[in-house]
Amino acid sequence: MSLRLDTQYADQFVSAGSLEKLRPAAEAAFKKVRDPAERSAQPIGWLTLPEDYDREEFSRIKVCAERIKKMCDVFVVIGIGGSYLGARAAIEFVKGANYNALNKNGPAVYFSGNSIDPDALSELLEICADKDVCVNVISKSGTTTEPAIAFRVFRELLEKKYGAEGAVKRIFVTTDKTPKPGTLKEFADAVGYETFVVPSNIGGRFSVLSAVGLLPIAVAGCDIDAMMAGANDAMKDFADYDFTKNTAVRYAVYRNCLHSEGKAVEFYCSYTPALQYTGEWLKQLYGESEGKDHKGIFPASAVYSTDLHSLGQYVQDGERILFETVLIPDEPRYKLDIPKAALDTDGIGYIAGKSLHYVNSKAFLGTVLAHVKGGVPNLVVSYEKADEKNFGYLVYFFELACAISGYILGVCPFNQPGVEAYKKNMFILLGKPGYEGQTI
Amino acid sequence: MSLRLDTQYADQFVSAGSLEKLRPAAEAAFKKVRDPAERSAQPIGWLTLPEDYDREEFSRIKVCAERIKKMCDVFVVIGIGGSYLGARAAIEFVKGANYNALNKNGPAVYFSGNSIDPDALSELLEICADKDVCVNVISKSGTTTEPAIAFRVFRELLEKKYGAEGAVKRIFVTTDKTPKPGTLKEFADAVGYETFVVPSNIGGRFSVLSAVGLLPIAVAGCDIDAMMAGANDAMKDFADYDFTKNTAVRYAVYRNCLHSEGKAVEFYCSYTPALQYTGEWLKQLYGESEGKDHKGIFPASAVYSTDLHSLGQYVQDGERILFETVLIPDEPRYKLDIPKAALDTDGIGYIAGKSLHYVNSKAFLGTVLAHVKGGVPNLVVSYEKADEKNFGYLVYFFELACAISGYILGVCPFNQPGVEAYKKNMFILLGKPGYEGQTI
Repeated sequence: MSLRLDTQYADQFVSAGSLEKLRPAAEAAFKKVRDPAERSAQPIGWLTLPEDYDREEFSRIKVCAERIKKMCDVFVVIGIGGSYLGARAAIEFVKGANYNALNKNGPAVYFSGNSIDPDALSELLEICADKDVCVNVISKSGTTTEPAIAFRVFRELLEKKYGAEGAVKRIFVTTDKTPKPGTLKEFADAVGYETFVVPSNIGGRFSVLSAVGLLPIAVAGCDIDAMMAGANDAMKDFADYDFTKNTAVRYAVYRNCLHSEGKAVEFYCSYTPALQYTGEWLKQLYGESEGKDHKGIFPASAVYSTDLHSLGQYVQDGERILFETVLIPDEPRYKLDIPKAALDTDGIGYIAGKSLHYVNSKAFLGTVLAHVKGGVPNLVVSYEKADEKNFGYLVYFFELACAISGYILGVCPFNQPGVEAYKKNMFILLGKPGYEGQTI
Repeated sequence: MSLRLDTQYADQFVSAGSLEKLRPAAEAAFKKVRDPAERSAQPIGWLTLPEDYDREEFSRIKVCAERIKKMCDVFVVIGIGGSYLGARAAIEFVKGANYNALNKNGPAVYFSGNSIDPDALSELLEICADKDVCVNVISKSGTTTEPAIAFRVFRELLEKKYGAEGAVKRIFVTTDKTPKPGTLKEFADAVGYETFVVPSNIGGRFSVLSAVGLLPIAVAGCDIDAMMAGANDAMKDFADYDFTKNTAVRYAVYRNCLHSEGKAVEFYCSYTPALQYTGEWLKQLYGESEGKDHKGIFPASAVYSTDLHSLGQYVQDGERILFETVLIPDEPRYKLDIPKAALDTDGIGYIAGKSLHYVNSKAFLGTVLAHVKGGVPNLVVSYEKADEKNFGYLVYFFELACAISGYILGVCPFNQPGVEAYKKNMFILLGKPGYEGQTI
């Protein structure tokens, strides 16, 4: 198994018997996720996706990604929420936070349509001005305000640059499978855009291993076969309910235990900036799945050691409402040693010649021990290294654990009714047809 | 006054009389920050910095920044915590999150030495491989592990690229003023690096408007005169204790009130990705100043509307432990309208021709109203626009409010004793001389 969960730094914070008390709920939750009735009522398609994904579309994604890589300098990915965070998390996890500055074998990948901010969109237009551009718009309905605005803007740009016909070849649409009247799918088919499918049985935040995430991930130069293989490994590893062995079940149980001990905030921590967006993805996955009915753990994230010099003081010694879930690789992507120096004015001569990974691993262990002593439980999730296989594995692990955790908490982990509230108000304020006379 | 605090979306969550109850503490806190005895005992130099900063050094920063802009393609800024976040927040606030891709009149600015991650450092070395490079190392003592490692690595790179003498002209050191034996200042003077001062009477998280932040900010093409002028305006606007008028005092009082009503988490929100690092800076400022003695509000941050499609569900309907502090400009940096389209399959024809800023402002208002209805108090901080003057103003506002807020809470807002805990453990684990025989 390429992933391990170390609970030794959390056990002392869990009351005697409270793990045992949650085990029946955990077993019921595990069975519920697999129950055919539940799976036809809820969007649980991600559960078997690593096995039953559409091979024809998967091959087409790879072919299409190679074409896009040759055709453009900038690849603009338009999507919000689950149509944004998964792909960005994957690319940064595998290629690092500086992927655009480093990538010499393909286009820069920029994400757009995830806000209504004129500044961010205008900046990206400026970046695209003298570049060749392709666009991937990702939207199930095609009517979500943020991506719809960005798609209009970039469609206009591409049609100006390449003419109507030229633009058609540079626009890729990931949307609903069925071309119902008035949908993006119908529009795309009519115009002739190549389309990919947002699976109807997988919710946005669980969709990174579908075409939603895979096309941008492949364009960024990641090996999506390896990513699916990693998810497939996880699917097999977590197929059976066995509390002592099933890491996804144990993680779900521990975080619920810590929550019931008064830990209101889960702090997802890593020791590499490349995992910043894995943190963002986790915040959506857990926050949106569990934050309802006035329940749920508030998810936050940090990149250490930089944030040890900002939020570290709070973690060590602030209100005791936190627990940490640390993501840590066994090996880094790069090997780099600390140079020797003639003078030791910086006082680090004692670690000169050592690898940064070695020092980083001591920073990690020292931090865990310090925070635990300060009253902050730590759950440590270790993986082999930052590659496609491990990302796929981690995705499946966290998705399954999230579903189980939500059911243990007593909420439906697959809906997000609260997201509509701001949209409804916005539509009323903007005077959207159909909202006349409604009050905020 | 270029900044306004709107408390109308928080008032209903504040019990009758609880604001009044905190006013004596607020007045005492305000006086304490200004008390000469306190100011000689604590690092409160930021209070008068916009007036009494070192003009000679300030001019030298501007001259030096122009020289650096001509001399290199990549400017590497080495620092952690307060020697990192302020400059990055300022640059992204003024120039946007894509500042490196957009800047055509100067070098790309990269931040390093803020983690021990070999991947991030190796990536930056790869970016620098075929580029001309200058380095600014920012460290009071010069012995903090993270920047010390990065400085060794980049010193080696520069000496290989330009020889020992050539490297001297490309390294800029911001450190303690006094060249005590064994310090970075002594080393820099001996070798001949140009140096700037980390003020001894200003703590890291309050230091962005000193040389610590100003040199990188100026190299990125920002107008530091305007930034200081904005801070100076704020200093004058908040010079008197007047609860009805002094916005910094009112913000400090409101957040303490909301905290005592059970709101454990403050969520700093904006509607532009350019403010992501302003959020990070705020998290350090407040988290490190207040998170001690098992007290303090846990600071988190978000960029809307993207995070309305991730954490929005939790904010709307999760555990009722949050309040939001929203930062919102009156005007954006760019004007951009929503294009008209022949077909309205995306359903946004009703806002075609409107500006994105108009729609974004309705998203903001709709969200505030939805979250308030859901039980989340909102404090709204409005500023004119994302320029240098407003950044300077906001910095002073939040620093002063933080100091007052910490005193109201009953902690010392200027120390960070908890940050030492992980360092001590790390040193023991690494076998640092002087730590032999100590136990974790």
